[in-house]
Amino acid sequence: MRYTPKSELDQRVAKLQALLKKQDIDGALIIQNADLFYFSGTIQQSHLFIPAEGKPLLMVKNTFERAVEESALDNIVYVDSLREILPTLQSHGFSGFKTLGFELDVLPANLYFRYQELFRPAKVVDASELIRTVRMIKSEYELEILREVNTVQAQLFPYISANISEGMSELKLAAMIEAFYREKGHPGLMRVRGFNTELHQQHVVSGSNTIPSYFWGAVGGRGVGPAYAQGASHKLIGRDEPVLVDIGFNVGGYSLDQTRIFCIGKLADHLTQAYQVAIEIIEQIKQMAKPGVPCGKLHELARQIADASPFANHFTGYPNQLTFCGHGIGLEQDELPVIGYKFKTPLEPGMVFALEPKFTFPDGAVGIENTYLVTQDGLETLTVFDEGIQYV
Amino acid sequence: MRYTPKSELDQRVAKLQALLKKQDIDGALIIQNADLFYFSGTIQQSHLFIPAEGKPLLMVKNTFERAVEESALDNIVYVDSLREILPTLQSHGFSGFKTLGFELDVLPANLYFRYQELFRPAKVVDASELIRTVRMIKSEYELEILREVNTVQAQLFPYISANISEGMSELKLAAMIEAFYREKGHPGLMRVRGFNTELHQQHVVSGSNTIPSYFWGAVGGRGVGPAYAQGASHKLIGRDEPVLVDIGFNVGGYSLDQTRIFCIGKLADHLTQAYQVAIEIIEQIKQMAKPGVPCGKLHELARQIADASPFANHFTGYPNQLTFCGHGIGLEQDELPVIGYKFKTPLEPGMVFALEPKFTFPDGAVGIENTYLVTQDGLETLTVFDEGIQYV
Repeated sequence: MRYTPKSELDQRVAKLQALLKKQDIDGALIIQNADLFYFSGTIQQSHLFIPAEGKPLLMVKNTFERAVEESALDNIVYVDSLREILPTLQSHGFSGFKTLGFELDVLPANLYFRYQELFRPAKVVDASELIRTVRMIKSEYELEILREVNTVQAQLFPYISANISEGMSELKLAAMIEAFYREKGHPGLMRVRGFNTELHQQHVVSGSNTIPSYFWGAVGGRGVGPAYAQGASHKLIGRDEPVLVDIGFNVGGYSLDQTRIFCIGKLADHLTQAYQVAIEIIEQIKQMAKPGVPCGKLHELARQIADASPFANHFTGYPNQLTFCGHGIGLEQDELPVIGYKFKTPLEPGMVFALEPKFTFPDGAVGIENTYLVTQDGLETLTVFDEGIQYV
Repeated sequence: MRYTPKSELDQRVAKLQALLKKQDIDGALIIQNADLFYFSGTIQQSHLFIPAEGKPLLMVKNTFERAVEESALDNIVYVDSLREILPTLQSHGFSGFKTLGFELDVLPANLYFRYQELFRPAKVVDASELIRTVRMIKSEYELEILREVNTVQAQLFPYISANISEGMSELKLAAMIEAFYREKGHPGLMRVRGFNTELHQQHVVSGSNTIPSYFWGAVGGRGVGPAYAQGASHKLIGRDEPVLVDIGFNVGGYSLDQTRIFCIGKLADHLTQAYQVAIEIIEQIKQMAKPGVPCGKLHELARQIADASPFANHFTGYPNQLTFCGHGIGLEQDELPVIGYKFKTPLEPGMVFALEPKFTFPDGAVGIENTYLVTQDGLETLTVFDEGIQYV
């Protein structure tokens, strides 16, 4: 078992504390699984209090024993109910709160009302942007894990090439991919932050199954029916059509995001040409992407290259197009930064994001997706694998 | 593709309208995927307005075309942004709201603030209990789907018996099960309503991997690490130990929940004896469970039988025990009713719930889970399959 080291947790907590102080927030109460894991090393059912100054306090309901085993934090106590949280904080010297930060981007309204009541007269404010800002910059420890993700992830594509066949359903291919990953330790779930946002372990669509879906992606897919209306369907994979596989393995909670195109046979010219434009986009973005450049500039460049091609109306979706072509990734699939229209955040070493220039046509979707690390010198590819169309 | 029929949607809407009127709520705005699917037949990104009186209005952002294809509702319009919702409602004759119901049990606080602002001076109240109450009683249409779930679900257990082997990792077995289901059309996701509640497609744990987890279940499991800390792990399946498989197939959005125990070889006496107590519990509950009996009585009876056995301290978890042994199921895994301590809701024909008496020991967990339909005459088993331990 890999446990997050104490030094790592200390650094993360210190970064959040600096932001809390700047905003005059007395402390943050962290509850959501991904954030809880990031700052405490455990997702055992807990409230993690991070004071603007002082040592964090992990208050655990279920299970205390595992939290103690998994978390390297110094102060871990058992707390049975919500009502005990305030007295527990007080008994550890934390009281007289004026402002407390919560994850109001994910905390359900009914729970918000309860916390507001419990901590009255303190003001409950949103700390989610601060938390997501800290999480945006990955540490060496996190990068080590992400590199480990790639060693497994890179084994998948040759496995697909060896096992994909004409007449196989998209669902059968999805099942094979998931089983390949699951046996190697994929948790079987992917965390996403956005409300109502649902992500399957993979996104496998072929040929004409590229209709847009309720999900904000360039490539939709029918899914198995109107109740789960995206991605792989019962459609059979045919010859001479693109099979888009968008996937990420997971190690220690962390994912990379990667897309490759497979084809049994030969692709029509508009698809191979559009694929080349996607390659051109990542190549040119790699030239531009240095620390200090605003994220929005990268999307702008992608958009310009797509607009100058014959496939402008197919970039990031068809008939509707997205206003972004990349997203931060790590413990969740929708982390900061957003590589999208008007996003001003300047690139900074340690940022990790997926870039996914894709072109969607009624007869298929093509494109490439890699996850990149921002370094002092520019982008480093974390999803290292052959970048061409994978012909079978 | 199966689309929810108009008559079905009409009935559901009418039921909610009756409850809205009773509570003096002018209408409900429904956004969350499971609820949206239930009342409109689509999960395309939408706001569904159900007035206390009159026809519902589905306001769709993404994608309009699929919503029109999938939903049998009469009034479907395109709406580009949140700001357009109120004017759109007004232009359809809905205005002067005093009280509006939202799904405040799942709606994130930040979104709640936005809606509150947009609909000022209307009061935003919680309609989630009303929605969940309507969804609690399944229609003939829904029961037809649930029976179809069982025809696939019942194929899984012989497949496991034929393929499980000593030395296979729990993850390998989980991968096999998921692939078996996925190819047949399982969406690859399970919807749960509770905040921070995460459910994998299956729960596969063997022998000693029964330590409690952050999840509210009788049987925990290590999972793949502290970031995803429940269920199947790299542990190898051994001889003479129980392998607990807790799973549900999904058809048209609906799941059943079912648990069976597998064993390669022979189980220790305390495990087979505890299994018999679990069987005794479902048999006795079946005698008691008639319309009108409060749900809590069923749990009370289960608890009494467990307490009278030598395994009282192992019922619904060890060392900590749960205060429920069953839960409603359908589009979500945690629907009403709750078969738990002090729950007063009387049984009613059309309720569907899983009953899962389980006993957890340091060397393994045993028990059984079936999903039952409440009829005028008592319980009907929806998860029809041999109820003994599956020896291999």
